Amino acid sequence: MSTSPTRIVMKFGGTSVADLDRIRAVAARVKEERDKGHQVAVVVSAMAGVTNRMVGYCHALDPMADAREYDAVVASGEQVTSGLTAIALQALGVPARSWQGWQIPFRTDDAHGKARIEDVEGAALLACMEQGVVPVVAGFQGVAPDQRISTLGRGGSDTSAVAVAAAIKADRCDIYTDVDGIYTTDPRIVKKARKLERIAFEEMLELASVGAKVLQTRSVGLAMKEKVRVRVLSSFAPMTEQSGSLVVDEDEIMEKELVTGIAYSLDEAKISVRRIPDRPGIAAAIFSPLTAARVNVDMIVQSVGSDGMTNMTFTVGKADQARALAALEAESDVIQYGEIQTDSDVVKISVVGIGMRSHSGMASTMFETLAERGINVQVISTSEIKISVLIAAEYMELAVRALHTAYGLDAD
Amino acid sequence: MSTSPTRIVMKFGGTSVADLDRIRAVAARVKEERDKGHQVAVVVSAMAGVTNRMVGYCHALDPMADAREYDAVVASGEQVTSGLTAIALQALGVPARSWQGWQIPFRTDDAHGKARIEDVEGAALLACMEQGVVPVVAGFQGVAPDQRISTLGRGGSDTSAVAVAAAIKADRCDIYTDVDGIYTTDPRIVKKARKLERIAFEEMLELASVGAKVLQTRSVGLAMKEKVRVRVLSSFAPMTEQSGSLVVDEDEIMEKELVTGIAYSLDEAKISVRRIPDRPGIAAAIFSPLTAARVNVDMIVQSVGSDGMTNMTFTVGKADQARALAALEAESDVIQYGEIQTDSDVVKISVVGIGMRSHSGMASTMFETLAERGINVQVISTSEIKISVLIAAEYMELAVRALHTAYGLDAD
Repeated sequence: MSTSPTRIVMKFGGTSVADLDRIRAVAARVKEERDKGHQVAVVVSAMAGVTNRMVGYCHALDPMADAREYDAVVASGEQVTSGLTAIALQALGVPARSWQGWQIPFRTDDAHGKARIEDVEGAALLACMEQGVVPVVAGFQGVAPDQRISTLGRGGSDTSAVAVAAAIKADRCDIYTDVDGIYTTDPRIVKKARKLERIAFEEMLELASVGAKVLQTRSVGLAMKEKVRVRVLSSFAPMTEQSGSLVVDEDEIMEKELVTGIAYSLDEAKISVRRIPDRPGIAAAIFSPLTAARVNVDMIVQSVGSDGMTNMTFTVGKADQARALAALEAESDVIQYGEIQTDSDVVKISVVGIGMRSHSGMASTMFETLAERGINVQVISTSEIKISVLIAAEYMELAVRALHTAYGLDAD
Repeated sequence: MSTSPTRIVMKFGGTSVADLDRIRAVAARVKEERDKGHQVAVVVSAMAGVTNRMVGYCHALDPMADAREYDAVVASGEQVTSGLTAIALQALGVPARSWQGWQIPFRTDDAHGKARIEDVEGAALLACMEQGVVPVVAGFQGVAPDQRISTLGRGGSDTSAVAVAAAIKADRCDIYTDVDGIYTTDPRIVKKARKLERIAFEEMLELASVGAKVLQTRSVGLAMKEKVRVRVLSSFAPMTEQSGSLVVDEDEIMEKELVTGIAYSLDEAKISVRRIPDRPGIAAAIFSPLTAARVNVDMIVQSVGSDGMTNMTFTVGKADQARALAALEAESDVIQYGEIQTDSDVVKISVVGIGMRSHSGMASTMFETLAERGINVQVISTSEIKISVLIAAEYMELAVRALHTAYGLDAD
């Protein structure tokens, strides 16, 4: 830990700036960090509810509203909060100024409504900080090559904050939210869930994508790429040195836990294409139409039947289930399947940990634990740092609790 | 009147874009003009109530809020309406796009919160219109030399519209409001008030500044300077060729009426400084302290007493009365007045008309008419195209009606 002045980005989400009192509290917290001698830049979301109201206006006028106009309308929410937060800081005697995306500039591509960040200029923000002024950046928004306002899509303010942190080479990006950190699993399910002091980017990516919605996946990906240390903490709890959880490069984690967390996702639907000819190209015949229909396939397993026929089972997002079925049925002549079975009453349970890379035998603990409870594993998939299984949804809580104990994650 | 395609600016105030239904109605009206083959640019205010809410937020956080942050917050209202109006136009099949002040650019000075327009670029807006796209300009806002958002102060959207009209050399600037034109006097007082088909800029300036609040004075001054023909009309009434009133250069008014209208202002307070030595420099001794106290003095009359002493009577805005008195009392040693009398129970009645320039005897009609009703004239002031008198407030309706008839303004 360095004792020289630290440069910090502090990001506050919609519930943290929901009203004037909350904005005053945000200003006070920013002042606290600044009084410690830190250089601080702030990134803010729109006041809770405002973005939804703006989106509602646009869609009421035209469900297919021009994304460039949608962006101009919706980005106004962050513009307001950035100005109000700057005023609240000044009222506490802290010099501050708001920065809109086009003023920084915070450059994105032209995919209005869900723009990708291209380049964030750090120079003006750094000059601002050098003068002792706290920049308050409007999150979620940027400027597209056509010089029009762009937005990053839902949850984009986390990504804004990480991009600003990278641009000004911040020592840390603090994401203030309504939970006080990242847990080994969902504390609503497992009472003994433990707050993680540190977690690696890769682990966070796996945990986020399988249902731990603390940080937007995209912001974690950017933080990993740009090596921005991210701290997740609550804007409602009192702050201490131990507040929140730190998401860092795995090199920064000395004592690597074998397993970091247990995640679950109820957003899975299982599709089984049964009694298909076991011939070369059959996988392509099934999955190409799904790709064409913009269906993301997650877990896949192929099982061979006794009669020279084979079965293909896979999972898709629940929202994609109907579209996936329609795509397959349209190709029934080509695929020549016997039947298609679907089951949306399933849950994906994932065990995540960078320690798995160097340890074998992690999967067998999972299978044994589930078998002991009589839980049938329907599909399995693995990555370098994750094992996922698909099981019947009714076993969700039981499985998560049993695995949390089996992997030694329970708090004392 | 030319029959070639006309270029029109259409400006809609807060009540005209108060909700999504009103915004749809605005879009329909714009489409109507465009369907006639006109080139149209639109300027919009914030939805009614939004600006007040934003101002309230800023002042709640800090009554002396940084004007640059205030501008960023408050200008968001017009940003939203410009985007929504563009979406509503597109939904009707009319190509449209929103323009923020910084995109045009609509350049102002750095007097944030009450900025003055420096230069409005017409090129981008004209290119937009050439492509058949209706530009929808966010009114009230611009960009200051510091590249931050500025606002023009209350009522600034009218001025925005005139400035845009000048920049794109529009044939006309239509200001849609909640009244259907400019009347010879207040129709709430005089049932026989007549809507004016045309009125000269100079007349409009005099009428606006004495209480006919249809158009912001500043926008009329700019229209006069830039020779922008302004039409005032209702966004709630059905539109015809005869809709509204046209404010134009006096050269465009063939049949000049002697008197165009009768205005009144209840915002006057009378101050009499009595029994002062009649010596050179006494006027300066009285009015210099008022100027220093930022008090605007309107009508002035000096009357000589029988004893070598003199009285100075003048009017100030009601809001300035207390400040004026304090300023005079602080200088009592210098002015050496006998006493100061004040009366805020007064009204200023003005008769306005460019025809007065070439006709004498207009004032005597006024004095005779008031004398016949037993109304005492307390102070008189005149300009090239206006005669104003100060009378007791209780006679206001009687005087306005009598003068309206006496100058031949009554509708048939």
